[in-house]
Amino acid sequence: MEFTSIQALLDAYKSGETTPEAYLRQQWTQAKADVNHCWISNISEAQLDGYIKALKNSNPELKPLYGVPFAIKDNIDLLGLPTTAACKEFAYSPGSSAFVVQALIDAGAVPLGKTNLDQFATGLNGTRSPYGACQNSIDPTYISGGSSAGSAVSVALKQVLFSLGTDTAGSGRVPAAFNRLVGMKASIGRISCRGLVPACRTLDCITVFAHSVDDIEHVLPVAGQYDPSDCYARDFSDSDSEVIYSFDKPRIGVPRDTQLEFFGNDNYRRRFSASKAQCEALGAELVDVDFSPFLDAAKLLYHGPWVAERYAGIKAFFDEHEADCDPTIQAIIGGARGLTAVDAFNAQYELQALKKRCDEILNSVDAILIPTAGNIYTIEEMQADPIQLNTNLGFYTNFMNLLDYAAIAVPADDESENMPFGITLFSDKGTEPKLLEMAKAYTGKSRIDVGERIPESMVMAVCGAHMAGLPLNHQLISRQASFLEKRRSAARYQFFALAGEGPKRPGMVRTKEGGNRIELELWEMPTARFGDFLAGIPSPLGLGKVELDDGTWVTGFICEEAGAAGGRDISHFGSWRGFLASKSDS
Amino acid sequence: MEFTSIQALLDAYKSGETTPEAYLRQQWTQAKADVNHCWISNISEAQLDGYIKALKNSNPELKPLYGVPFAIKDNIDLLGLPTTAACKEFAYSPGSSAFVVQALIDAGAVPLGKTNLDQFATGLNGTRSPYGACQNSIDPTYISGGSSAGSAVSVALKQVLFSLGTDTAGSGRVPAAFNRLVGMKASIGRISCRGLVPACRTLDCITVFAHSVDDIEHVLPVAGQYDPSDCYARDFSDSDSEVIYSFDKPRIGVPRDTQLEFFGNDNYRRRFSASKAQCEALGAELVDVDFSPFLDAAKLLYHGPWVAERYAGIKAFFDEHEADCDPTIQAIIGGARGLTAVDAFNAQYELQALKKRCDEILNSVDAILIPTAGNIYTIEEMQADPIQLNTNLGFYTNFMNLLDYAAIAVPADDESENMPFGITLFSDKGTEPKLLEMAKAYTGKSRIDVGERIPESMVMAVCGAHMAGLPLNHQLISRQASFLEKRRSAARYQFFALAGEGPKRPGMVRTKEGGNRIELELWEMPTARFGDFLAGIPSPLGLGKVELDDGTWVTGFICEEAGAAGGRDISHFGSWRGFLASKSDS
Repeated sequence: MEFTSIQALLDAYKSGETTPEAYLRQQWTQAKADVNHCWISNISEAQLDGYIKALKNSNPELKPLYGVPFAIKDNIDLLGLPTTAACKEFAYSPGSSAFVVQALIDAGAVPLGKTNLDQFATGLNGTRSPYGACQNSIDPTYISGGSSAGSAVSVALKQVLFSLGTDTAGSGRVPAAFNRLVGMKASIGRISCRGLVPACRTLDCITVFAHSVDDIEHVLPVAGQYDPSDCYARDFSDSDSEVIYSFDKPRIGVPRDTQLEFFGNDNYRRRFSASKAQCEALGAELVDVDFSPFLDAAKLLYHGPWVAERYAGIKAFFDEHEADCDPTIQAIIGGARGLTAVDAFNAQYELQALKKRCDEILNSVDAILIPTAGNIYTIEEMQADPIQLNTNLGFYTNFMNLLDYAAIAVPADDESENMPFGITLFSDKGTEPKLLEMAKAYTGKSRIDVGERIPESMVMAVCGAHMAGLPLNHQLISRQASFLEKRRSAARYQFFALAGEGPKRPGMVRTKEGGNRIELELWEMPTARFGDFLAGIPSPLGLGKVELDDGTWVTGFICEEAGAAGGRDISHFGSWRGFLASKSDS
Repeated sequence: MEFTSIQALLDAYKSGETTPEAYLRQQWTQAKADVNHCWISNISEAQLDGYIKALKNSNPELKPLYGVPFAIKDNIDLLGLPTTAACKEFAYSPGSSAFVVQALIDAGAVPLGKTNLDQFATGLNGTRSPYGACQNSIDPTYISGGSSAGSAVSVALKQVLFSLGTDTAGSGRVPAAFNRLVGMKASIGRISCRGLVPACRTLDCITVFAHSVDDIEHVLPVAGQYDPSDCYARDFSDSDSEVIYSFDKPRIGVPRDTQLEFFGNDNYRRRFSASKAQCEALGAELVDVDFSPFLDAAKLLYHGPWVAERYAGIKAFFDEHEADCDPTIQAIIGGARGLTAVDAFNAQYELQALKKRCDEILNSVDAILIPTAGNIYTIEEMQADPIQLNTNLGFYTNFMNLLDYAAIAVPADDESENMPFGITLFSDKGTEPKLLEMAKAYTGKSRIDVGERIPESMVMAVCGAHMAGLPLNHQLISRQASFLEKRRSAARYQFFALAGEGPKRPGMVRTKEGGNRIELELWEMPTARFGDFLAGIPSPLGLGKVELDDGTWVTGFICEEAGAAGGRDISHFGSWRGFLASKSDS
């Protein structure tokens, strides 16, 4: 039984086509037999039995990830296995599982073990590990990408259905691209980082690899549960529910051709052009954007003071065990010792200035499309030039967390090509719902077009006590409404001074034929404030559509005819102000 | 002519009681005659003439601060006068005015000069200046508070009507308290800091001093114009217009008595108790909160790496001119040299953990009330113990910018006491509208109670194509609406299948008497989404109030009777689903 879709597996469990016991045991056996250097450790058979037993005692209906096997990058804690961060001397036995791991297990997912990574998550290639250079799932002579190397390859090889990686500089995206997977690097703080060995604590993200955007959507609500005990966690539930993304014709930014860099890989260059063409074919408008401030921000990550975070994260260990570390890691982390607090703040100023420019560019489009990586290398090439080639791999990824953006890496094309090429769509923090919709459209080759854009403000016709200077006008003013113009209705209304308590107010009752023109004021009010305004409108009044004297219709006050009974027909005044003036005259 | 209210001055100009020429010349003369060490420099008579001439050529109606004199702390650029930061060797002639200064001038305000400060805005007392220790406006033997010393005293002495200060550690609040003024320390980034000599660039705020909250409200919309070119500026216009604060009984947090510190000043302790009592008398509920994480955050400011920002801001100058600086400033800024990037990041982690705790506490109340300063000192006392006493002054202020909160300092009591005591109300960033309302209520001794809270969601009755599973239900689902229950209307409706194009839909027309019960579904939808939902509702339908079978009313679909003409009366079905079923049967 082979599955590359979480829903398909759940359906197979439901139909009895397979059982968690059979399937998980098969997958565990496959994982144990892995030859790509995916795993640093696997759960024992006794541990597996424990998970299977727990599933038998639980209700599948209440477990959205019931019996779904997954892998955990070995810098994230799983109770019962050591956390190594790919450094044997660093290894420790965690006292509990990371918050996100526990959330997944609670939802029925079963961790088959801990996966290989570039030591201390420092690298984007997957070779910097004493547990062996992780091998690409499609061609083992190629790098897997890293640092979440084994997490990607174990999914790609169908040993597990999804996995947790991490992403500080691009570790949750580059391996997705190189193994034809989806890699979701959500906003900083969406997925709890409690129980993670820090790389750069202000930038670290835990990420998810899966075969499809659908599977990411299956896992993310569980993995992304807000963790109030992680001081870097952020609660995006408000923005998730409020923001509606919508594009009649989405505007997708792309770097200018001259700003693209493929490090000699013309095949990737062609395939990125094809990706752009695909976006256009799916209904997007491509917009050239200046990519230079993003690239400038990217350079700060390793050439700026943030490497001091890597040192700060493991300082006590590193000072004592420097020689035990991978030589490349020694060079990178050891280099942080000379950095001063002034360096740290100056780089933050520089970043802030770049972020301002990048935000402006990002806000001018719905998302930006870039290659996930500009080139791919063989393990041999990588080991021959470990720093420069790794830098190349981060060309399109290093800026993402520094600038506080969310990104999703997806396969760019089908399996007709040998080595995969991937693209990344990114946008501001908290925009995961939009990115997921766009990524789904791209990978499913369906129209990139979701929902409708909500207008910031709407025009409303008022005819009575809400008009300027009258007793209820404050209800508009306090909602930031502004006066537009005086108008008259079509000659299709009867106008009543309504009976009842409270401020005197009129009602416009539409006639079947004939009727009077009524004086109106058009006010513009933020769309979001119509709801609480509506709440205060009593029967028989309501908000509907009012016909203006030029035959156009506008949102405005309407009145139920039955409720006008008992009121006085003041149609001949043609205006509430006129009626009021007649009363004060009398 | 003496004014302590901007509106009163504007009214006097309007009525002809005085003129800008007469009043500004009088104020400029007073400022030049100042003996409290308020000013470092004043504009020349020729410059004054220029401002007066410009006013004569402009329309007062278009200038909200027409002819209002103000003062500028001398670390903020004003074209035409040097910027010294209270260090003669540092002085330079700016090429343009700071963004906020220019905005005020453009609005008609007239700067009378640059005011004295603790050198490089490093201090909270006002004595650390080669231009003389600034003297308190009420008793010149006492400190003015600082670092915005002259900015506060020049307002208090009625030389100007408002002034610009800055506030990194409390410099916009402590001098307000000591001179019986209002000091508005808005959120970081609300007032542009372009043209400011940085103290700590990530924390600096430009602030406003005035005699009343009303005057702050007059100045802030001008001073707080968003500056797209300041990379630390933030645009709060969305939250300002969306968030409505409202408290039937506002919950105001206060530190536990044991966490208060008055450094032996029992008079201030009594007066803070009186302030709390006043808040209760004005309708607030006082809630004891744990103040310890705020105090822990405060300690990070001078004992953590943020002093490296002060060094970074003037490094080239300081390395060359250290001996020219005030001895206390030398000690503080020079101490930053030994700090490493690891120190900087570690302190940021510590701060983030504290912020998480503080945010939780702050979110549990509507605002927190604290003394602005726990004690006041004479200039002689201050100079005898310049570091420790200054630290005391920052006890209640140092945490504010580190935690990214907004604060307003207001006089706590009237002039019956000799030396003033002040309180501060603070809340999260972006909550200035709330803080201003509360401060106005406190100082005006009016009820602390503003506006209404907007419900997050509202219930809506639907009777037709919006019901579950029917063709327009997606309009609810896509707006995050959720189904609540099935209900029936009161027996007061006629039910029509409307004529016309598009999805078939019914209308409930309220009857004058008699009528039928109609099957309804109640859905709960985010309040903010009613506006764009309403936009899509065509005539003759609208949203108003629908009566349920228990006599209660709920927001829901209503229908204009005239528009039901041409439709089919389907009242006897009592339900849209029933009608649809009858059609499919036939």
